[in-house]
Amino acid sequence: MTYEEVTVALHDAISKDDTLLIENLIAELQLADLAEFLLHETSEATLKLLTHLPLEQRAEAFAYLEHSKQAEIAEQMSEVGLTQLFTRMNSDERADLFNLLNEDRQQSVLRRLAKEEREDLRRLASYEEGTTGAIMTSDYVTVPAEVTVSKALEIVRQTAPNAETIYQIYIQDSEQRLVGTVSLRQLILAKPGADLDQLMTTDLVTINVHEAQEEAARKISRYDILALPVLDDHERLVGIVTYDDAMDVAEQEATEDMHKGASVGPLDESFGKASIFNLYKRRVNWLVLLVFANILSGAGIAFYEETIETYVVLVFFLPLLVASGGNAGSQASTLMIRGLATGDVGARDWGKLLGRELLVSVSLGLTMAATIAGIGFWRGGWDIAQVVAYSMLAIVIVGSMIGMSLPFVLNKLGWDPATASAPLVTSIADIVGVLIYFAIATSILNIGMA
Amino acid sequence: MTYEEVTVALHDAISKDDTLLIENLIAELQLADLAEFLLHETSEATLKLLTHLPLEQRAEAFAYLEHSKQAEIAEQMSEVGLTQLFTRMNSDERADLFNLLNEDRQQSVLRRLAKEEREDLRRLASYEEGTTGAIMTSDYVTVPAEVTVSKALEIVRQTAPNAETIYQIYIQDSEQRLVGTVSLRQLILAKPGADLDQLMTTDLVTINVHEAQEEAARKISRYDILALPVLDDHERLVGIVTYDDAMDVAEQEATEDMHKGASVGPLDESFGKASIFNLYKRRVNWLVLLVFANILSGAGIAFYEETIETYVVLVFFLPLLVASGGNAGSQASTLMIRGLATGDVGARDWGKLLGRELLVSVSLGLTMAATIAGIGFWRGGWDIAQVVAYSMLAIVIVGSMIGMSLPFVLNKLGWDPATASAPLVTSIADIVGVLIYFAIATSILNIGMA
Repeated sequence: MTYEEVTVALHDAISKDDTLLIENLIAELQLADLAEFLLHETSEATLKLLTHLPLEQRAEAFAYLEHSKQAEIAEQMSEVGLTQLFTRMNSDERADLFNLLNEDRQQSVLRRLAKEEREDLRRLASYEEGTTGAIMTSDYVTVPAEVTVSKALEIVRQTAPNAETIYQIYIQDSEQRLVGTVSLRQLILAKPGADLDQLMTTDLVTINVHEAQEEAARKISRYDILALPVLDDHERLVGIVTYDDAMDVAEQEATEDMHKGASVGPLDESFGKASIFNLYKRRVNWLVLLVFANILSGAGIAFYEETIETYVVLVFFLPLLVASGGNAGSQASTLMIRGLATGDVGARDWGKLLGRELLVSVSLGLTMAATIAGIGFWRGGWDIAQVVAYSMLAIVIVGSMIGMSLPFVLNKLGWDPATASAPLVTSIADIVGVLIYFAIATSILNIGMA
Repeated sequence: MTYEEVTVALHDAISKDDTLLIENLIAELQLADLAEFLLHETSEATLKLLTHLPLEQRAEAFAYLEHSKQAEIAEQMSEVGLTQLFTRMNSDERADLFNLLNEDRQQSVLRRLAKEEREDLRRLASYEEGTTGAIMTSDYVTVPAEVTVSKALEIVRQTAPNAETIYQIYIQDSEQRLVGTVSLRQLILAKPGADLDQLMTTDLVTINVHEAQEEAARKISRYDILALPVLDDHERLVGIVTYDDAMDVAEQEATEDMHKGASVGPLDESFGKASIFNLYKRRVNWLVLLVFANILSGAGIAFYEETIETYVVLVFFLPLLVASGGNAGSQASTLMIRGLATGDVGARDWGKLLGRELLVSVSLGLTMAATIAGIGFWRGGWDIAQVVAYSMLAIVIVGSMIGMSLPFVLNKLGWDPATASAPLVTSIADIVGVLIYFAIATSILNIGMA
């Protein structure tokens, strides 16, 4: 059966409440696919279906659901059922769910948990959103430094059921400071009697718990590591971030940067599920702000009203010239924003990059000036051809320089460089473009008329 | 010592050729950081420095370098040195390097390799760029289904030194078809005498070797797996893709989509290192194409020359109105393109999404019409206020609809939806905006004058 067929049959089985068929069909699906199917079901149907899964898988499938849906379902569950789910979820996902509950529910869940789990949950749930603390898990394996490989393997076996990964093992000193790591691969290959402190890596990549989560993702990707140890301000190990969470963070960050690049605010929920009001709210601010920016373009045009009345033909080239500056600028700013985000270029490269961009934009401007000169001659003779060619060259160069610089300036000011969105760069380039165009036109045409 | 201090000292040590100091400093760095440092060094200095590393680490550090640099260094290496490097590199990275060599060099390397490695290299190097085959590795661990857990662990120990990961183990039948997988975690936790075929997972996530590499990355991210098995057309296991390669692919794809979103063609090299000519080439085509699109806007304006001559005030609002349509359209297309890329929305959701976008854009259009009406009244009285308000509403709605639809239409035609770049959407919205504006103006102002 294909995924499509299974989901159609499953939808059917739920409405008929056919328990046996439901269980057979669920077994055909990967949990991630089951969660996708549940996206389109009501929270009642989802809850009913989840109860057909054994607790372990129920907790895993639950974690794949969207946060808004998790909150809905958690509200409908009994206290006992919810607490059961809490005990089986990964510590990081559990903390996220905890933060979605209302206070009464939070208290009742806390009361029912064992002391250790309660403290762990409270701690993980307390980190601010966007920090590494908010995505880390406390389900990792630690061993003391003074044991042998075979003893370490025994500890790994004992703690494995509760750990998110056992492939990276952490070694702490008596004050809980991280002193080394060893991989399960190393343990498996080492002699059973070897000493762990001889085997372990002490040259560690770590992150502070308060650092941004995208920095954690970047480190995992850069150093090709499975899990990144997270330290508090006293160098104590407090959690790990695993590669799968890093992949999710990287995807989210790329999505956010793309949205910002089109001047859309962060959505907090998936685009597919976003409400009309939420979409409106995330888009309207910039649109209205940009209206005011564009009024400046209009004011620029009004300033040259006389020139326009004498040469109405100039208006024909207006959209084309200002759009070209905006387009070249958007290209430059997007290249720069992504370069900064992936760490490909840094703030100190600005001078070099600006110099290169100057040469690139002169080449682009010359090509486009040559393209447009012929049309200018055809519509308005030699003078107009000169005006549009010079304007095009100047506008493309200036637009590119603005696009290349704006992300850097924002970065220097401590803002997100991605705020230099295509619409913002285009608007600024438009204003400058109008002024350049009419200044060149006024100057050349007056000379031509003299 | 901080990273900065180490690199400054290292640069110094290289110029002085101080072998001991070089080796001490290298030991302070993670290999990924060393590779970053080498980015800014000449290929001669890089080669010199690499020879200070033991072969194992040399191969790993080499793999972190940019492809263009790898090619340069490989050319300067002796045949023996290069072959040594080949034997120690991961099979996927080795195949990439092989494809960068000229034919003579390829032949001399092949001659020096053992038969098995030679065939493996030839096979991996033969997959087309962009396919899963081109990023997969053949360094995985397989065991037969009929063994016990302890025997399986023994096989894992034996093959581990050559495997990229030993955390996921693959079980093949006699015809090399993949029948199951088992994780090292499962093996460690199982009773040594248990049968592997009882333990293994048979419900597998796999990918065909010819599928796009971003599909492999998507599957790894979606199913939270460490390594994805790759099958040929006969369901035989031919390789695996590991999570770290998937992270690199996802980052590359996001970068490519962002660049496309600003109408920049794929760069093939990093933005930081790209040549002036390459940047020119990737940007000029769309810029020139868009000039021709914008000529249509100019033609639209020329068509309404009489209206403009009577009401020059209309030109004041022109940039503002057309930019607003373009901005709303860019927002919509970017949301849609990223939604399609992450799998958040599918082609069949178009109708639903278009309906929602209609409501969102009506709300946006009304807000912006209200914003602009006052300015219209101030600049040109009641008639102009009406013209700009109605135009704004219509332009924002139409721009949004174009932005939402274009990625879908391109997708249906089998194109990359990301081709619906902000500049393209903006240009189309501009043309439509000019026509809407002057049509409404002509109609309302004629009535007003009658």
